Amino acid sequence: MKNRDKSLSADIVRIPYQQMEAEFLLVLKKKGFSDDKAKTCASIFAQNSLDGVYSHGVNRFALFVKFVEKRYIRIDNEPELKGSSAAIEQWDGRLGPGPINALICTERAMELSREYGIGCVGLSNTNHWMRGGTYGWKAAKAGFAFIGWTNTIPNMPAWGAVDCRLGNNPMIFAVPYNNEAIVLDMAMSQFSYGTMESYKLKKQQLPLSGGYDKKGQLTTDPSAIIETQRSLPVGYWKGAGLSLLLNIMAAVLSGGEATHEIGRHEDDFGVSQVYIAIDISKLDNYRMIVGIVNEIIDDYHDSVTESDSMKIVYPGERALNTRKENLSEGIPVERNVWNQIKSL
Amino acid sequence: MKNRDKSLSADIVRIPYQQMEAEFLLVLKKKGFSDDKAKTCASIFAQNSLDGVYSHGVNRFALFVKFVEKRYIRIDNEPELKGSSAAIEQWDGRLGPGPINALICTERAMELSREYGIGCVGLSNTNHWMRGGTYGWKAAKAGFAFIGWTNTIPNMPAWGAVDCRLGNNPMIFAVPYNNEAIVLDMAMSQFSYGTMESYKLKKQQLPLSGGYDKKGQLTTDPSAIIETQRSLPVGYWKGAGLSLLLNIMAAVLSGGEATHEIGRHEDDFGVSQVYIAIDISKLDNYRMIVGIVNEIIDDYHDSVTESDSMKIVYPGERALNTRKENLSEGIPVERNVWNQIKSL
Repeated sequence: MKNRDKSLSADIVRIPYQQMEAEFLLVLKKKGFSDDKAKTCASIFAQNSLDGVYSHGVNRFALFVKFVEKRYIRIDNEPELKGSSAAIEQWDGRLGPGPINALICTERAMELSREYGIGCVGLSNTNHWMRGGTYGWKAAKAGFAFIGWTNTIPNMPAWGAVDCRLGNNPMIFAVPYNNEAIVLDMAMSQFSYGTMESYKLKKQQLPLSGGYDKKGQLTTDPSAIIETQRSLPVGYWKGAGLSLLLNIMAAVLSGGEATHEIGRHEDDFGVSQVYIAIDISKLDNYRMIVGIVNEIIDDYHDSVTESDSMKIVYPGERALNTRKENLSEGIPVERNVWNQIKSL
Repeated sequence: MKNRDKSLSADIVRIPYQQMEAEFLLVLKKKGFSDDKAKTCASIFAQNSLDGVYSHGVNRFALFVKFVEKRYIRIDNEPELKGSSAAIEQWDGRLGPGPINALICTERAMELSREYGIGCVGLSNTNHWMRGGTYGWKAAKAGFAFIGWTNTIPNMPAWGAVDCRLGNNPMIFAVPYNNEAIVLDMAMSQFSYGTMESYKLKKQQLPLSGGYDKKGQLTTDPSAIIETQRSLPVGYWKGAGLSLLLNIMAAVLSGGEATHEIGRHEDDFGVSQVYIAIDISKLDNYRMIVGIVNEIIDDYHDSVTESDSMKIVYPGERALNTRKENLSEGIPVERNVWNQIKSL
């Protein structure tokens, strides 16, 4: 549901992956990024777009650059180890670029799990990691099981509340599969504001209730929800509860700020994150693992669907298809978005 | 939503906590449990009831005993370590009583985290742990952060599917708070079948859509959902995806059976579970932790509500209130349920 909009209008251009990555690289170097960091960030933004997660790829790139210009993102800062207790470490992100901090902490959790079976990194004082799935794919493609999450600014009400005190706190679960990965990248709100804006622009209703209108009624009207700011937590009280727990654990395990503190900043920066990796190659049943995951997915795909035209897909499967399509046809971008990037 | 039914009818008796625990103890000893195991199980069933989770307490006790009689639950079997890699261990539950296996593995994850900062136990071949929150409360009251989950029989369809291939796979997140705990105990279905049966009995509609009717429409009619067996995952496709990932990770990390395999058994036994504990007293920011959790909950409680009569509660807060009420007034039980237990 990350703005994978298939209804491409005349205002859409298709940019080849290499060209997009090269353009991002050019801009980031111009803005003062070192070669290495520019390459890493350019690659993450291009890959997110390639996989169809435009909201955290090409559509977000200009805002990322703006945050660099405003010094919300400190491009020369690298994360520092604050403390450790064997398999768990706490890092200070020092407001460095979110995707770079996130990659470093994912890799560190993987290293810890190589040594201890499981590894955990709490990262404070960092910036938006863009697509959380990036780090799930990274770990799972390297053979690790991965659980990670971030807290955010307050953007969702508690269950029964009208003001936003919770974050949508995306959570990632990933496991290796078929030389790729199964990656669940799940925010705690039913629809992101990006998705709702996109439906609103197209004058479409959401496929299912996504929040509350002024009268306190559940609605599929994106404009009504954007107006009240009462987006719906996944599973009503359940997703609200999970958001609260993810926020508490992110703040506790990283020693970083909680959602109510982040909300006091002048913008969306300085969040707290958790990275847990498990080295499944260390498990006694390792040789069985490939078999069992294949069996589970085969059974899942065998589901009887509502109609013959429907296909049951696992989390991450659609991204693989979009990746293939975008690699061959170019990545779809709104012309004005692309022009803006070229002018940066 | 765990059958915390306040509309007590004339058919409800109030049983003091001590009397309920003593009655459970008597039955379990009669069924061949050792003194220690009988005490542990009786205490868990009584405490779950005390906290208002009747569906996994007093209302489930007779079925637990039936499973013992059918030898689905092997009361003399104790879990065995199958393999380990530093902070992660795999245990074989040998079909022992689920709550006892779960307690042992919770404690083992806590011990591992004392040594490594974080500890993980995968438990295969075990039985229903009743209320997953039990183990979250256990760990969090002892000062640990806890994440755990179980897989189950297939009882929920994939998103877009009409047949059940996923489990409702309850997941627990818990942290210490105020000498007690914040405990999220969240199944991946919006309403459990227990809850839907309870609404059906009272001829009431569910408060929100809980699944699909025969025509494939979302409905609040519990009978219609029980008929189609198409219960709604929390957050639609999101909870379905999370259920899939929890099942894969449970099978992989424990070396145990996955939902599609458990579904081939003659009944609901032999599940796989994961227990992760984090020793937060080892963290550098430990002295700040109490403060930050208090602040988060204070801010959460300050939410503006829809109406003055509403109170925003954190996961586990309602259980504390029910516990207090049931301690002073006795635990409410349907008369026929209590009579059945006394006849066991």
